Amino acid sequence: MAALPQYETLSGNWVSPHVFHIQLNRPDRMNAFNPKMFEEIPQAFEFLNKQEELRVVVLTGNGKHFSSGLDLNEAFQAIMPESDDTARKTIKLYETIKILQHSMDTLNRCRVPVLVGIHGACVGAGINFACSADIRYCTKDVKISIKEVDIGICADIGVLQRLPLQTGNDSLLREITYTGRFISGEEALKLGVVSKVSENQETMIKELIEVAQTIASKSPVAVWTIKQALNHDVNKAVTPNLEYMARVNAAMIQTSDMQESVASFLTKKKAVFPKL
Amino acid sequence: MAALPQYETLSGNWVSPHVFHIQLNRPDRMNAFNPKMFEEIPQAFEFLNKQEELRVVVLTGNGKHFSSGLDLNEAFQAIMPESDDTARKTIKLYETIKILQHSMDTLNRCRVPVLVGIHGACVGAGINFACSADIRYCTKDVKISIKEVDIGICADIGVLQRLPLQTGNDSLLREITYTGRFISGEEALKLGVVSKVSENQETMIKELIEVAQTIASKSPVAVWTIKQALNHDVNKAVTPNLEYMARVNAAMIQTSDMQESVASFLTKKKAVFPKL
Amino acid sequence: MAALPQYETLSGNWVSPHVFHIQLNRPDRMNAFNPKMFEEIPQAFEFLNKQEELRVVVLTGNGKHFSSGLDLNEAFQAIMPESDDTARKTIKLYETIKILQHSMDTLNRCRVPVLVGIHGACVGAGINFACSADIRYCTKDVKISIKEVDIGICADIGVLQRLPLQTGNDSLLREITYTGRFISGEEALKLGVVSKVSENQETMIKELIEVAQTIASKSPVAVWTIKQALNHDVNKAVTPNLEYMARVNAAMIQTSDMQESVASFLTKKKAVFPKL
Amino acid sequence: MAALPQYETLSGNWVSPHVFHIQLNRPDRMNAFNPKMFEEIPQAFEFLNKQEELRVVVLTGNGKHFSSGLDLNEAFQAIMPESDDTARKTIKLYETIKILQHSMDTLNRCRVPVLVGIHGACVGAGINFACSADIRYCTKDVKISIKEVDIGICADIGVLQRLPLQTGNDSLLREITYTGRFISGEEALKLGVVSKVSENQETMIKELIEVAQTIASKSPVAVWTIKQALNHDVNKAVTPNLEYMARVNAAMIQTSDMQESVASFLTKKKAVFPKL
Amino acid sequence: MAALPQYETLSGNWVSPHVFHIQLNRPDRMNAFNPKMFEEIPQAFEFLNKQEELRVVVLTGNGKHFSSGLDLNEAFQAIMPESDDTARKTIKLYETIKILQHSMDTLNRCRVPVLVGIHGACVGAGINFACSADIRYCTKDVKISIKEVDIGICADIGVLQRLPLQTGNDSLLREITYTGRFISGEEALKLGVVSKVSENQETMIKELIEVAQTIASKSPVAVWTIKQALNHDVNKAVTPNLEYMARVNAAMIQTSDMQESVASFLTKKKAVFPKL
Amino acid sequence: MAALPQYETLSGNWVSPHVFHIQLNRPDRMNAFNPKMFEEIPQAFEFLNKQEELRVVVLTGNGKHFSSGLDLNEAFQAIMPESDDTARKTIKLYETIKILQHSMDTLNRCRVPVLVGIHGACVGAGINFACSADIRYCTKDVKISIKEVDIGICADIGVLQRLPLQTGNDSLLREITYTGRFISGEEALKLGVVSKVSENQETMIKELIEVAQTIASKSPVAVWTIKQALNHDVNKAVTPNLEYMARVNAAMIQTSDMQESVASFLTKKKAVFPKL
Repeated sequence: MAALPQYETLSGNWVSPHVFHIQLNRPDRMNAFNPKMFEEIPQAFEFLNKQEELRVVVLTGNGKHFSSGLDLNEAFQAIMPESDDTARKTIKLYETIKILQHSMDTLNRCRVPVLVGIHGACVGAGINFACSADIRYCTKDVKISIKEVDIGICADIGVLQRLPLQTGNDSLLREITYTGRFISGEEALKLGVVSKVSENQETMIKELIEVAQTIASKSPVAVWTIKQALNHDVNKAVTPNLEYMARVNAAMIQTSDMQESVASFLTKKKAVFPKL
Repeated sequence: MAALPQYETLSGNWVSPHVFHIQLNRPDRMNAFNPKMFEEIPQAFEFLNKQEELRVVVLTGNGKHFSSGLDLNEAFQAIMPESDDTARKTIKLYETIKILQHSMDTLNRCRVPVLVGIHGACVGAGINFACSADIRYCTKDVKISIKEVDIGICADIGVLQRLPLQTGNDSLLREITYTGRFISGEEALKLGVVSKVSENQETMIKELIEVAQTIASKSPVAVWTIKQALNHDVNKAVTPNLEYMARVNAAMIQTSDMQESVASFLTKKKAVFPKL
Repeated sequence: MAALPQYETLSGNWVSPHVFHIQLNRPDRMNAFNPKMFEEIPQAFEFLNKQEELRVVVLTGNGKHFSSGLDLNEAFQAIMPESDDTARKTIKLYETIKILQHSMDTLNRCRVPVLVGIHGACVGAGINFACSADIRYCTKDVKISIKEVDIGICADIGVLQRLPLQTGNDSLLREITYTGRFISGEEALKLGVVSKVSENQETMIKELIEVAQTIASKSPVAVWTIKQALNHDVNKAVTPNLEYMARVNAAMIQTSDMQESVASFLTKKKAVFPKL
Repeated sequence: MAALPQYETLSGNWVSPHVFHIQLNRPDRMNAFNPKMFEEIPQAFEFLNKQEELRVVVLTGNGKHFSSGLDLNEAFQAIMPESDDTARKTIKLYETIKILQHSMDTLNRCRVPVLVGIHGACVGAGINFACSADIRYCTKDVKISIKEVDIGICADIGVLQRLPLQTGNDSLLREITYTGRFISGEEALKLGVVSKVSENQETMIKELIEVAQTIASKSPVAVWTIKQALNHDVNKAVTPNLEYMARVNAAMIQTSDMQESVASFLTKKKAVFPKL
Repeated sequence: MAALPQYETLSGNWVSPHVFHIQLNRPDRMNAFNPKMFEEIPQAFEFLNKQEELRVVVLTGNGKHFSSGLDLNEAFQAIMPESDDTARKTIKLYETIKILQHSMDTLNRCRVPVLVGIHGACVGAGINFACSADIRYCTKDVKISIKEVDIGICADIGVLQRLPLQTGNDSLLREITYTGRFISGEEALKLGVVSKVSENQETMIKELIEVAQTIASKSPVAVWTIKQALNHDVNKAVTPNLEYMARVNAAMIQTSDMQESVASFLTKKKAVFPKL
Repeated sequence: MAALPQYETLSGNWVSPHVFHIQLNRPDRMNAFNPKMFEEIPQAFEFLNKQEELRVVVLTGNGKHFSSGLDLNEAFQAIMPESDDTARKTIKLYETIKILQHSMDTLNRCRVPVLVGIHGACVGAGINFACSADIRYCTKDVKISIKEVDIGICADIGVLQRLPLQTGNDSLLREITYTGRFISGEEALKLGVVSKVSENQETMIKELIEVAQTIASKSPVAVWTIKQALNHDVNKAVTPNLEYMARVNAAMIQTSDMQESVASFLTKKKAVFPKL
C-alpha cells in the first residue's frame, strides 16, 4: 500500500487495504481545472493502476465545492495556440482537445471502479470529469451545470458524449445544456446523473466508502471483467463521438463569441453576438 | 425580422428579436397532418433557417389539441399508390415514406433549438413530429398516444426510432406502443418524453418562451455547435433505423389489416384479423 | 389451440384464443436454470412460434420465486469443459456461452410480444432471461439481483448488454452490478427495469393478462412489425456486445475466483482473492 | 473418420485423415439448387463440424458444372407463399429468404476452412454459395454469372453482400451484376473472385487438395482462430446487409417482372416491362 | 421521352427509348466545375429521375477532356465566405461543402445505373464526380489525378471516401493521393478505378452504350433493387465519412497554404510552406 | 534538423530538409522484433513527430532482410505471464497484446506519411508492421509471409485487420494466411499489398526517396489532412477489430500448440496436434 506521490492538485489516502480515496485538492481555487490538474490526473491514476491491491477508488473534492470547472485564468492561455494560419491553429487545438479528453477519460480507463461524490458547485470540466466515472453520488445542495454555453462554446471533453447514454430524459438534458442552468441533487437523481442524493458531504463520503468496501470484497477478476464489458459497450459510441467533437471544436472554439461571453460574465453586461 | 409567409396549415410570429413562435394551425381539424401540412412544415423551416437573427423556435398547436395525428380522410389517398405490381407499389411507398420522414425530421434539422409544447391530444404523427424537437413540455391534461397500432400499422416516421434513445424505460415504451394507450403528462415525465409538465397551455407557452429567451441570450455559435454535436451522436443510430423502417413498411402498410382496423375504429366493432 | 408439449421445467396454457401463459416450473428448486431448462426454453417457444393464432405470451414463475438463477449443482458441471489446453477449453466455453445466450435470447426472438411478471427472487440468469422480454412487471416485494459478481464472474448472457439500453440511470445500474445487491420493485421501477409494480403475484398476472388481451385485439401484422422494428434498433448494439462478451468470458470464467467465491458463499467465510 | 450420411444432393469422402472432399451431387440437373439441397447443405456441415479430426473441407461440383443456380422448376413453388394479404406474404418471404441465406452461409460458419473449386457453369445460387467459402479456385473455362437480374430480381443470398468486400474493382463488379454477363476464369482472377485459375477440373481438385493438406498440417487452434478473426471482421458488415436485403426482397420478389423475365428467357422473346 | 431542359453546363439526348446520354458541356473551359455546374447537375438528374422510361444514363465529357476539375477562377470566390469570426466562417464553409458533396453524389442517388466514360484530363472534382457513378470506362490516353494536394487541400467531395472501398490497392491509392500524380488508363484498370480501357473516346462511348442497352433490356425492378442494395452497403461507410470530412475541411481549407500552392502552380516557383 | 537519438534497434538520418530515412537495425538478427524494438519504435516516432520540419518518413531494413518477424528467443519469455489463474494470465496477455499492437500501429499514427521499402524476408511481425504504413514498395526477390500459423497462433498485431481493407482478393489473402506460404514481389503487387516492385534494395530506396521528395514539396497542411481523412475511414473498422483480436488471443495464445509448432519447426519433425 504505497502512498500517493506528491501532487500540486490532488491528494489521497488508503481508507482500507483495497480502497483508495483521492481528492481534487485546490480548495482555494474551488478545485478549478488548470493545466497542472489535467496533467496530474492521468499521472495519479497511472500510479493507482499499478497498485495491485487496489480494487476501488473513491473520488471527491476537497473544500466547499467539487469543482468550478475550467480555470479561466490559467487554462485559456495554455490552450490557445499562436499562428497566423487557421489550419495550423486548428491542428494544434485538435491535438490539445484530444489531450484534455484523454485526461477527463481517466476514470473510464481506470482498472477498477471509480465512485465519485459531488458536492457544492460541479460545473463545466467538473461534470465532464465526473461523468467518466462508474458511479456518482451527490449531496442535496449540489449545484451541477454544463456551463460551457456561458463561455460561448460547446462542451467537448465528455459530458455531451456520455450523459445521453447514461440518463433517461433527452429533453431535460438538452434544456440543461442549452441554458447552462443549475440543477439540484433531486433533479440530478430524476435525470439519472447520480444514483443517490446524500444528506451532506460527510455522509456522502461515508456512504460511498461503504459501497466501495462491498465492491472490494468481491472477486477482482469479476469486477474487472464487468467494468471492461460495460465500458466496451458504451465506448463504441463514445469514442468516435469524442473524436468527432474534437474535430468540430478545433475550429469552433476559435470563435470571438468566447471573448464576448466571458466579458459579459465578468461585467454582468448583456452579451451582443453577431448573427450566424 | 421578416414575417412568416402565408401557409394553409401553419401560423407564427416573432415573440422577441431572436425567438419565433410557430403553430400547427388547423384547429378545426385538431391539427391533423394532411399532405399540405407535411409539405409546408419543411418549407416554413427553410424560411426560418434563413432568418439570420433566429436563435430559438417555440412550436405549439393552435386550438384544443396539439395534433390528432394523420388526417385519415386526406392522407391515405395521397399516400397509397396505384399499381398492379407489388414491387412497383413498394417502390412508390418507400419513396413516400422517405418524404414523410423528411418532413417529420424538420425540427431535428432546424439550425436552432426547437422547443415543443404539447397539450390536448398528441397522437400518431403528432408525437412522431414532437419527438424530432430538442425540448418537450406538456400540459397536465395532455393525452399522448403512439396510435399507429390502432390503424393496423407500425409507426414509421420517427417516434419508434427516437424515443428509445430519449427515454429511460424500454418496458413502458413498448407497452405504450403495443397497446396504443394514452399516457398523461405525469407518465410522460416519468418515462422521460418531456422535461416539464405545465399547469395549462397558457402557462406552458409562457414557460417555453422563458427558456427560449434564456437560450437566445447565449452565443449562437455555442448553441449551434451543441445542437450539431448532440444530433450527430443520435442521428448515427436514428438515420439508418429510419431508412430500415421505410424499407420494411413500404411492404407492410399494404396490409389489409389497415382497412379492418380503421373499419373497426369507425364502427366500434371488434376487428377480426387473419392469422399470420 | 394445441396444448404445450410436456416439458420437465416449463408448463403453460392458453388463457384466451390468442394469449398463452407459460411458467418456469421447477418450484421446488426456486425455478433455478439447469441445463434442461436452457434446452427446453427455445424448444417451447419454437412450438409457440408455430401456433398461428398466438398473439401474446405471458411468462411468470411457478411457486414462491421467479427464479433463483443458475442451478449451481447441475449447471456448472455441464458447462465446464475438460481439456489440458487453455485454448481448447476456451473454444468449448465460447461455444457453450453462445448456446446459453441463444436460450436466454428466446423471448427477444419470439414472433409475438412477451410480457414477463417477476415476483419473489429474480436473480442472475433469472434477470438475464427477463431482460430479453418486451414488457416487465414485478411485485412490490420482488428481490432482483445481478448476482454473478458473487460467484466471481461477470454476467454474460444478456443483462449487461440489454439493461444499459433499456433503463435511464447508468450510475445506479453499475452500482447494482458491481455490488450484486438486491433492488426492490420500487427501485426497479425508478431505474426503468419494469413498467409497473403490482400488489402481488396474483394481481400482477391479472394485470399482465389484461395488457396481453389488449395487444391481442390489435392487428397481428402491426404488432409483428412493431416488434421487428424495435428489436432491429436494439439488436444492432446488443448482438455484437453479446458476441464480444462470449469471447471475453470464455477465458475469464476459467478463473479460480469462482471456486473461492462459491466456497465463501456456502461457508459464509470472507473470500480471499489473489491480486490482479 | 465417420462416413458422410446419405444425402440426395451431396456426396463426399475423406481424402486424408484431416481433409474431407464434398461434392454437389445432382449432375443430371447441373447441380441446380432445389429445396432439398438448401436443406441438406447445413445438415451435412453440421455433421462435418462434429468430426473432431476434420481440419479442412474441399468442395466441388460433380459432373460438368459447379452449379446452374436455382432450380426454377422446384424452387419457385416452394418459395412463393399463398396469401391474399401482401404483408403476410412479405412476412413469409422474409422468413424464407432468411432460411436460404442461412443455408448459403454454411461455408462461412464451418469450423474449418472451406476451399471451393469452380468449373463449368457457376451461376446464381452457385456463385452466392461459393462466395461464402474461404478460398476459391476455378478452371480456365469456367463461366461465372450473377444471373439473378435475368429472372427479374436482385440476388439476395450473399453474393452482393460478400463480393464488394472480397474483390478490388467495384465498377467491374457492378457491370457484371447489372448485365448478368458471364466472366471467364481469367477475368475472375483479375476481379479477385478466385485466387488461382487451374487448367481443368482434375488439376484444380488436385491443387486444392494440396493446399488443404498444407493447412491440415498446421495447428488447428491457429487455423480456427484465424478463420474466427477474419470472419468477425467481415461479418460485421455482411450480416446486417443480408438482413437488410431480406427485408427489401421480401417485397421486391413479388414483382410480376419475374414471370415476364422467365417467360422471355424460355421463349427467347424480348421481355416488355412496365415503367417504374 | 422528354428533351433535357436547357442548361449552361450540360447537354444530352436519348440514344434509345430507355438510355439517356448526358455530357459535361463546357468544352472551352475543359469542363471545369463552376458554381453553375454544381447547381445544374442535381437539377438535370432530378429531371432524369422523373422520366419513367429511363433505365440507364451514360455520362461523358464534351470536347478534349472529361474535366479539368474545379474552376479556380469562378469557384473559389463563390465558396470562400466573408466573416471576421473563424467559427462563423467554418459554419458557412461546412454548409457549402455539404452542398458540393450533395451535387457530386448525384450519380450515386440516381434511380438508374450511371455509366461514366472518362477521356483526356480527369482531375480533382472530375474524378470525385466520376467515382459516384456505377460503372467507369476510360480511354487509353486518359490522365487521371486526385489533384487537390496541389492546391494545398485534401479532397472532400467523395473520391477519398469512395475509392478505398472500390479498388484493391491502398498503397497505390495513397501514393496517387499524396503526390497528385497522373495515372494512365492502364494503371487505372490495375488499381480498379475503371472496368475497361477503351481505344478512344468514340469507341468508349459506343461500348458504354452497348452495356447500357443490355442493362436497359433487363427488368427495371431488378436493376433498381440491385442499385439500392449495393448502394446501401457502401453508403453506410461513405455517408458518415463525407460528413466527417466536411467538418474537418470546413476549418482546414481556410489555410494560407492554398494561396501559396496556387501561386506556385501559376508562377512555377517552388512553394514555401510554414512548418506545421 | 535534430539527429535521431541513439537506439539499440533503429538508426536513421535526414536525406533532405523534410525527409527522414529510418531503418530497422538489427542486421545480425535479421531485424527480428525483440522487446527492445517494440519499445523503441514508438519512442523514435514520438521524436520524429516533434520535428516540425518533418514531412515524410522512409522506412527500410538494414542488412539482407526487412525483418524475420518476432525474435522467438527474446520475445516469448517477455510476453508470457506467470500465474496459476487462467483469468489473471489472460488479463496480463490482453494488456501485453495491446502494447504490441500500439507499437505496430506507430506508422499509422505518425503525423506524416510513412513509405516502407521491403526486401529479403518480411515475415510475421515484419509484415504486420509494414501494413500500418501509408505506402509499400518491395524488391523483386522479397519473400513475404504471414508466418504466425507456423508457430500455432493467429496474427494479432495488425496484418489480419488491415490487409483485407487494403487489398483486392480475399481468397488469395486467406490462402496465404492459412498456409503461411511465401509470396513474391510480383504476387504482392497483384494482391495489392505493395504499389511497386523495384529491381533491388538500392533502387527501391532511391525510388521511395523520390516519391518522398515529391510529397515533401506539397503543402504539409494538405498532406496532414489527407492522412487524417484516409486513416479515419479505415481506423473505424481496424481499431475495434484490433481490440477484438486482443481479447480472443489473450486466451488462444495460451495454447500448447505453440510449443508443438515451434518444436516441429526446430526439429523438422511433423507436428502432432490434439483434436479440437
